[in-house]
Amino acid sequence: MKMDPRLCWLPFMGPACEASDPFAMAQAELALGLASLEGVQARVSLLPGRGDGYEIKKEQDTYLVQGGEKGALYGVYHLLLSLHAGECPLTKWNEPAFPLRMLNHWDNMTGKVERGYAGDSFFYQDNRFDYDPARIRQYGRMLASVGINAISINNVNVHAPADRLVTDQLLPEVKKIADILRPFGVRLIIAVDYALPVTMGLKTADPLDPAVQAFWKKQCDEIYACVPDLLGFLVKADSEFRPGPYMYKRDHAQGANMLARALKPHRGMLIWRCFVYNCRQDWRDHSIDRPKAAYENYAWLDGQFDDNVILQVKNGPYDFQVREPVSPLFYAMEKTEKAIEFQLAQEYTGHQIDLYYMAPMWKEVMDDLRVMPKHICAVTNLGRDENWTGHHLAQANLYAYGRLCWLGREMDGKGEARRWIALTFGQHFPEADRLLSMLMDSREIYEKYNAPLGLCWMVTPHTHYGPDPEGYEFALWGTFHRANHQAVGIDRTEKGTGYACQYPEDMAKMYQDTDTCPEKLLLFFHRLRYDFKMKDGRTLLQRIYDDHFEGAQGAERLLSDWEKMQPHLPEAIYAHSLDRFRRQVKNAHDWRDIINTYFYRFTGIADEKGRKIYD
Amino acid sequence: MKMDPRLCWLPFMGPACEASDPFAMAQAELALGLASLEGVQARVSLLPGRGDGYEIKKEQDTYLVQGGEKGALYGVYHLLLSLHAGECPLTKWNEPAFPLRMLNHWDNMTGKVERGYAGDSFFYQDNRFDYDPARIRQYGRMLASVGINAISINNVNVHAPADRLVTDQLLPEVKKIADILRPFGVRLIIAVDYALPVTMGLKTADPLDPAVQAFWKKQCDEIYACVPDLLGFLVKADSEFRPGPYMYKRDHAQGANMLARALKPHRGMLIWRCFVYNCRQDWRDHSIDRPKAAYENYAWLDGQFDDNVILQVKNGPYDFQVREPVSPLFYAMEKTEKAIEFQLAQEYTGHQIDLYYMAPMWKEVMDDLRVMPKHICAVTNLGRDENWTGHHLAQANLYAYGRLCWLGREMDGKGEARRWIALTFGQHFPEADRLLSMLMDSREIYEKYNAPLGLCWMVTPHTHYGPDPEGYEFALWGTFHRANHQAVGIDRTEKGTGYACQYPEDMAKMYQDTDTCPEKLLLFFHRLRYDFKMKDGRTLLQRIYDDHFEGAQGAERLLSDWEKMQPHLPEAIYAHSLDRFRRQVKNAHDWRDIINTYFYRFTGIADEKGRKIYD
Repeated sequence: MKMDPRLCWLPFMGPACEASDPFAMAQAELALGLASLEGVQARVSLLPGRGDGYEIKKEQDTYLVQGGEKGALYGVYHLLLSLHAGECPLTKWNEPAFPLRMLNHWDNMTGKVERGYAGDSFFYQDNRFDYDPARIRQYGRMLASVGINAISINNVNVHAPADRLVTDQLLPEVKKIADILRPFGVRLIIAVDYALPVTMGLKTADPLDPAVQAFWKKQCDEIYACVPDLLGFLVKADSEFRPGPYMYKRDHAQGANMLARALKPHRGMLIWRCFVYNCRQDWRDHSIDRPKAAYENYAWLDGQFDDNVILQVKNGPYDFQVREPVSPLFYAMEKTEKAIEFQLAQEYTGHQIDLYYMAPMWKEVMDDLRVMPKHICAVTNLGRDENWTGHHLAQANLYAYGRLCWLGREMDGKGEARRWIALTFGQHFPEADRLLSMLMDSREIYEKYNAPLGLCWMVTPHTHYGPDPEGYEFALWGTFHRANHQAVGIDRTEKGTGYACQYPEDMAKMYQDTDTCPEKLLLFFHRLRYDFKMKDGRTLLQRIYDDHFEGAQGAERLLSDWEKMQPHLPEAIYAHSLDRFRRQVKNAHDWRDIINTYFYRFTGIADEKGRKIYD
Repeated sequence: MKMDPRLCWLPFMGPACEASDPFAMAQAELALGLASLEGVQARVSLLPGRGDGYEIKKEQDTYLVQGGEKGALYGVYHLLLSLHAGECPLTKWNEPAFPLRMLNHWDNMTGKVERGYAGDSFFYQDNRFDYDPARIRQYGRMLASVGINAISINNVNVHAPADRLVTDQLLPEVKKIADILRPFGVRLIIAVDYALPVTMGLKTADPLDPAVQAFWKKQCDEIYACVPDLLGFLVKADSEFRPGPYMYKRDHAQGANMLARALKPHRGMLIWRCFVYNCRQDWRDHSIDRPKAAYENYAWLDGQFDDNVILQVKNGPYDFQVREPVSPLFYAMEKTEKAIEFQLAQEYTGHQIDLYYMAPMWKEVMDDLRVMPKHICAVTNLGRDENWTGHHLAQANLYAYGRLCWLGREMDGKGEARRWIALTFGQHFPEADRLLSMLMDSREIYEKYNAPLGLCWMVTPHTHYGPDPEGYEFALWGTFHRANHQAVGIDRTEKGTGYACQYPEDMAKMYQDTDTCPEKLLLFFHRLRYDFKMKDGRTLLQRIYDDHFEGAQGAERLLSDWEKMQPHLPEAIYAHSLDRFRRQVKNAHDWRDIINTYFYRFTGIADEKGRKIYD
């Protein structure tokens, strides 16, 4: 498992240190970091009981980092990164916006990563643990340097033997990973299989069955004896063929609380995913609307979850599509702790082949949220690839995600991109402005050549790369757009499926009126005729055509911008990303031509500007 | 590998005999067969040098079977099957229509059968030979009982380790199979990897390279020392990513002749598949038309193939679709020996879940052929399933295929179905007429709910089961229909792609005129508006709707017919097929609704008879 420690945003650091705890790590990493900074003096001191926070002052010529148990370490990285980025490192007392700042690995023990686009897992291979401790330390440093403090280490779709991570069969191996990451302030979460009691010999996994409750209590006692600071469990239940409490006619509060009570004596948390919907839906049945599912399954349970339960809710009501509204569940369930879940893995956003910087999207979500969820989580975009993320520039998403975790809605996506560029390519990188524009434009470019205006799901089934306008149209996943010769989209207003009514009244009103609904979400909420007039006077159809031509041009521009940067880039980095930009251009052309042709075949209406739309 | 010898069309026979050669087998099988026939006396005698033919006379009370080396065995089965079917067994001298009557196994050595719907391979498992010799003998009897005399034993897509079937690594295993099947008159064919010389250490597989020629000569010497009656090689070259002579800028005559010359001293044949086309075709490019490919690749090479080369040509120009015209290659290449290739495996015809009796289709093909190809071949529909073919009734296709091999265009599909029913379910089966109707109607039923009028390829990609109208529309396989709001289909006349011009002039004229083109092929040859008037006055659109409603009703009728037969069927047989018929009804409803909705969404025109078409 070859890797070059310089291939991240801390290229000046070399291999990560070993230390016994986060403060010792802070001291070691500070010493190491200072070696790369001529003439800088600094020291770090611990403020017991102050947790994740820190401040940085300067006394005479010496920077003084003061912080809590983990805060001291975060402060040290803040100092080093600021200095390397050419920014002033001084800061008043600085605390993170979210107490739990999590990443979810979708790593299978086979080594394959579900929806992974950066090579195999760096934890597993061939159904066993198989890793380089130095690389795990390097990873711990990356996480700590942006303040991420918890990771789940296995796929939420728990396939054997990963179901045994919580048993004495594999717990000793989990402990080794926990021990490596603990000094970086990173705690582990294990994704568990709800049916484990049955696999282990019980007759049922019914959460109300005393034997099941006893099973999990005993299991938790064993787990915490081995990994005393395990954060807790992550559960995907009753979702996409995973087992869960519905199998026993129990609701999800009953299902989650049972596990939460087993964790409680150990101060463990139970993180429960709300990605529950009917995945055997008949397209002929217009009475079901998948985006309504999370709200319908959970909203009525508010107040019934134990206080160590966290409901983990995807940012949108569907599934990490390029453009979705914020999930209505975030405006409900006031009495329930929630975590918002993003996806760094570019499942629907270009497979880490196409450039897609996510911070602008997160910023929009944060702006739309009225009450911030307490915690935050993201599916990683990481793998064994030497550069961690497949596309080298996709590292910016991991970096910016950490900053989002720390700063919440104060995060400035552009500023963080600029800082990531300075750290990765050097403070005086002459092409920084061009690269910054590429990152900042990338989401809009991708969105324009993808499915139009929040329509979603025109992607190739299974792989989720490239266009297939009707690929999901007659499938069982509840992902329809019902395009015909006159109109396209699902009416989700009160006259349609009523999805919009799951929002607070003023938002529902805003979404339901085509005049006030944000244009980029028009086809998420409305079924519209192709001659619908957009605000600027264009027809919906022409807007679709224009977006797709512009999106493809944008992809071509990204490629030519990258080509211009060649003289200023290491050859290997240049060539590696060049290949990706070329593939992106091909992908963008496919999207442009197939989506435009798809609508042209329905309407027979040519592009107003006479551009080529194929028959 | 459980199997019940009664689960075939020779239920009265029990386990197959062992014998040293076909005549000894004829004697043994006759003795065994007579044991099940009270009061019947018969004997068999050999007419040396008379090959596959036989005659059956009656002298006093004794039937006398006289036949050639294999003919005596064929005659014995003719006698036994006729008596069990309640038919007169007497026959004048009787010879097969085709000298080579072949089956191709698409069995991989992993055990998986490519496009197999009856379980894993009964030859292989886990990349090694793994079989029950008694079952192979049983299989040999089934083949001999209908006169099939050669099988290829591995997938034409040759995956390692099957590439070593022709080397000393696996040849001894091939020999064992050959030894079991030889007494049944069945010879083996091995599908070879054109790149084997490279795999084995040479720098090239160029057919004009002397080292490559020497390699294959030496290999053939070894092979024939081990299996002296091997029929020869089967090759899929330059097709769907398989290696071939095009890689070395050689044509297919050069490529095939090189192998043929290595086989020639051993009287081996080289069977060369003509399934060659551009499988990376861009949908935007209207200049290429895949059905033209076989003719374009081969027709100009007529006269250049050695006399032990057989070109194996699929029955239609595409790929075993439900409705295709006969391949134009059968009307060309007069100087070249050809074999026609059918597919018993129901890849596009219902996966041996849906009932699809193929004899009516073969009959149509035979009627359309002007010169009969010399040989005949079919991809098997067989696997480890106890009943051999998944759907028990799919056995009728294997049986009837053997009869087609023997009788050529004289084969009577209905008569053979009746005979198969009598053999399988008993001469006095009270539901014989109902079952016969089911078999005879099955193809039209399936065709009606499938893609309309020869349009092809509205099937789910990869799996090839169930509808997906645009699943192949933007893919790389050259399988387009280009439906839009006005019209559907590819114009293959001289004004279009010119495919029709590959036929003899009178046929080309017939196909190019919508008045004379067979209606069932209208959308194969023509692009037509939905308001095109069919001969009976219906619009094309209404015809599509009608066919799909009728096809689904047909599937429902098959189910209810089967249900009526319950009292007269063994419970296990009844229940097993009942499940298949229920799945067929679901499949037919999916096809009906999705295809109808697909065209309704383009046109907005409702069904004239007011039947339900979903939005």
